[in-house]
Amino acid sequence: MTALSHTLQFRVRYSEVDQMGTYYNSRPLEWFERGRVELVRSLGMSYREMEQRGILLPVREAYVRFLGRAEYDDLLRMTTTLTMPGRAQVRFDVTIDRADDGRPVCHGWTVHPVTDRSGRPIRPPRWLLELLGRG
Amino acid sequence: MTALSHTLQFRVRYSEVDQMGTYYNSRPLEWFERGRVELVRSLGMSYREMEQRGILLPVREAYVRFLGRAEYDDLLRMTTTLTMPGRAQVRFDVTIDRADDGRPVCHGWTVHPVTDRSGRPIRPPRWLLELLGRG
Amino acid sequence: MTALSHTLQFRVRYSEVDQMGTYYNSRPLEWFERGRVELVRSLGMSYREMEQRGILLPVREAYVRFLGRAEYDDLLRMTTTLTMPGRAQVRFDVTIDRADDGRPVCHGWTVHPVTDRSGRPIRPPRWLLELLGRG
Amino acid sequence: MTALSHTLQFRVRYSEVDQMGTYYNSRPLEWFERGRVELVRSLGMSYREMEQRGILLPVREAYVRFLGRAEYDDLLRMTTTLTMPGRAQVRFDVTIDRADDGRPVCHGWTVHPVTDRSGRPIRPPRWLLELLGRG
Repeated sequence: MTALSHTLQFRVRYSEVDQMGTYYNSRPLEWFERGRVELVRSLGMSYREMEQRGILLPVREAYVRFLGRAEYDDLLRMTTTLTMPGRAQVRFDVTIDRADDGRPVCHGWTVHPVTDRSGRPIRPPRWLLELLGRG
Repeated sequence: MTALSHTLQFRVRYSEVDQMGTYYNSRPLEWFERGRVELVRSLGMSYREMEQRGILLPVREAYVRFLGRAEYDDLLRMTTTLTMPGRAQVRFDVTIDRADDGRPVCHGWTVHPVTDRSGRPIRPPRWLLELLGRG
Repeated sequence: MTALSHTLQFRVRYSEVDQMGTYYNSRPLEWFERGRVELVRSLGMSYREMEQRGILLPVREAYVRFLGRAEYDDLLRMTTTLTMPGRAQVRFDVTIDRADDGRPVCHGWTVHPVTDRSGRPIRPPRWLLELLGRG
Repeated sequence: MTALSHTLQFRVRYSEVDQMGTYYNSRPLEWFERGRVELVRSLGMSYREMEQRGILLPVREAYVRFLGRAEYDDLLRMTTTLTMPGRAQVRFDVTIDRADDGRPVCHGWTVHPVTDRSGRPIRPPRWLLELLGRG
């Protein structure tokens, strides 16, 4: 029952920076999504395939704490960690630092019910629990 | 067979401005979409209802000419003009100026085939031609 | 020492909706920003002018709870309420409902230190406290 | 005086897809920017460093032709080619295909004057011409 983790690096895009010269405050939620997607892919299934099998993980709650600047073209390192705080709920904790000097940029988390295509919460199927190491 | 036109005003959002202090270069395409939507609404039908009736106007081509700065919170005035260069094609020409002094911000155009839900070009139904003043 | 509140209505843009047919999860943070901006404007000063006077309110923390769908072109009603939980800190609480039937879409909050242009926290100047009804 | 070219691959993000299940029409302009940035980096200088040296390449004109769908998580291949149609003007031509089967997604171009920090067109300095293979 250990936590599952994934780390990736990416550069801040020009379009993601505002007139203060640092990332606009909604960007972390887009970055967090990439972290979730790549974590799930690292387990052996794409989130897209999960959707095609009828399982969705919509965002129920999101929290961001802004810790430091990140400028255009800065290389960032994002670590995403998955836990299951309930039987039908998934949580991703995310930390984003600058890759060169490790200075913190932001951290946060999102919570997701496991649902069917109509958005109704369901008990996770066995294949999903096994994928997430809870089988 | 006159052109149909619509003008609206809006303010530049913080999230739309980049570190040069002016609107990021993909924003005009989002603004153009609002102009199209409000022009169609002014004719008496929402674009959403048009989609629900099975008629789509996907973007086939888009062009933007960048003419001047627009900063955060600037009030802009956008005029959208609809023409039908072909039997099954719609074109929207757009000009965006600063509302206070009329200085040009950008202009451009988009071209759209009339399609069904699957994206296949179709002959526009009579109700659409009448809506667009071509009935 | 009452709370300051502001309500505005807006339509969900096509560009704000994802393939699930509802608003993408980072959009509320952009909407929240518009709520803050218009609340401050309703007090008699634009946020832009505040920045020009050397006072910034960067986002320190943000939280969103997703409560229901909002589709393209839906008319939403957003209420923003300002409080000062500390001497040099501003908090905005936001609720967003569908304007027609009042069904909840999302709510959340953001917390902002009062800083100078360099991002350093400062004691709010008297004019700011008066603007916020704390003078 | 040969053209300079650069190719990169990237995946379509969830946030980039609209309710039609394909990329929203302003996304190509964001993708084009990444292509320009990585082409310039491949020449041995970051665009950021170019800005720090006082040389900007603001977008003057942009054109996109939409050729096919690209869905969430699709792997795309973007090729960017730089030419100098005038002494103080740079043009980037871009083609984007699906990486797996080569089906076209979109192509387009952008035109950029060479300017100083204030946005005034200038003669490109020698180091820039050398970087661009025009020295």
